[in-house]
Amino acid sequence: MTQENIHNPVSIVGTGPGDPDLLTVRASRIIRSADVILYDCATAKPALSIASETAIIHEVNRQASAGKPSILELIEMYYHEGRKVVRLKVGDPMLFGGEIDECRALKALNIPFEVVAGITAGSSAASSYALPISLKYQSNSVTYIIADEPGADFALFRDASRLLRHGSTIVLYMATKNLENIFRVFVEEGVPETMAVFAVGKSGWPDESSAEGTMRDIVAQIELRQLKEPIIFFLGRHLTKEKHFPVMSACS
Amino acid sequence: MTQENIHNPVSIVGTGPGDPDLLTVRASRIIRSADVILYDCATAKPALSIASETAIIHEVNRQASAGKPSILELIEMYYHEGRKVVRLKVGDPMLFGGEIDECRALKALNIPFEVVAGITAGSSAASSYALPISLKYQSNSVTYIIADEPGADFALFRDASRLLRHGSTIVLYMATKNLENIFRVFVEEGVPETMAVFAVGKSGWPDESSAEGTMRDIVAQIELRQLKEPIIFFLGRHLTKEKHFPVMSACS
Repeated sequence: MTQENIHNPVSIVGTGPGDPDLLTVRASRIIRSADVILYDCATAKPALSIASETAIIHEVNRQASAGKPSILELIEMYYHEGRKVVRLKVGDPMLFGGEIDECRALKALNIPFEVVAGITAGSSAASSYALPISLKYQSNSVTYIIADEPGADFALFRDASRLLRHGSTIVLYMATKNLENIFRVFVEEGVPETMAVFAVGKSGWPDESSAEGTMRDIVAQIELRQLKEPIIFFLGRHLTKEKHFPVMSACS
Repeated sequence: MTQENIHNPVSIVGTGPGDPDLLTVRASRIIRSADVILYDCATAKPALSIASETAIIHEVNRQASAGKPSILELIEMYYHEGRKVVRLKVGDPMLFGGEIDECRALKALNIPFEVVAGITAGSSAASSYALPISLKYQSNSVTYIIADEPGADFALFRDASRLLRHGSTIVLYMATKNLENIFRVFVEEGVPETMAVFAVGKSGWPDESSAEGTMRDIVAQIELRQLKEPIIFFLGRHLTKEKHFPVMSACS
């Protein structure tokens, strides 16, 4: 509701991988009480199912386009009207969400905000399949990498691949189009082609599916099982086939 | 309720860092409807505040002790009584929770189970302080490491330190007692002592507090600000002072 002189802080809220059941309790309460909801990604849409019927909902384009207000202009306008503005982010806002730019802009505009953590797709997938991404004294680290822009020399990937030798897990986001090149540099760095890979398509969605294999055959397995994007890839020597479990999903 | 021949799957549920507000909606519903709740860590206690008054609650010791039933024996007994058993895990069950052993044991006992993801303390802390743990094209990976048993040669830490040169973020859990040695090997591997460090004590708790500095002075900063355990350490060149924000907490 619009109220003169009362300003609600802007909430940047992580939706988790999609399923509103994986929102945090705090996120759920904030979305329910929002006057205005802004989102820029279709995978945030399921969270809208719990919004108030009177909420103003905007699908916005991150890139400013001619004649249309930017996300920030919308946030600013609604904030100054005293409305409770919620900016949805898929997954975990601080992880690969690019939210820092918006946080900085809000700070520069002197608009108070809060960020509410969300479950990242790697975490929900690891839980869905009880993946041993960490294993006491055997797999003591997990590295999440966003792989849509790997850089010409794949330097980050080369260095990250060294962690695999310690039994650690690497989780790749947005890697599909660069997968062949990423695996090539991993092999160049000494990772065996038999390294276990577990892939989860549409983690947290009703049409979630998975494939398992090695760096050598995971692409074929993904095609065979027709995994849908977004796909999360887990690599690690503890992610071998016999260690997966027939975990129940959505049995709550 | 006990019902003949009806068996509820066991739920292994992540509580997030502590605050029940950071449970997922699914976790919250499962805890509310639990007949039996087992937990082994005081930081899981706040989640008990939403349990049914009639729920049987056990604080259990992970290590079996003489004359006392093990966690697994309790789970098995209550499961076969038809009760809805919930096993709480602080944070994210698959991340440093050691839950794989219990998952394997349940599988061997032919007891169906589900794992419900939780917000890890690193994620909640990053959100609380809007930490730029990932930054498009500048900080494309985040590595979580559990540092209570670093190994004699710190080999994992040596390799992980290489990621810092790419602007990536390293998040250390349970690192306090080994911090000096971890930083020593980081320096040996070429990480400048001026590398930014941000520390958060009791992430997600009412008495959460933080300190910022560099590898050189963070210990003094922690003492100055009297941070309480558990402390999460973030390292990365984007975590510099001027990039932090006065984020509101709990303004929902």
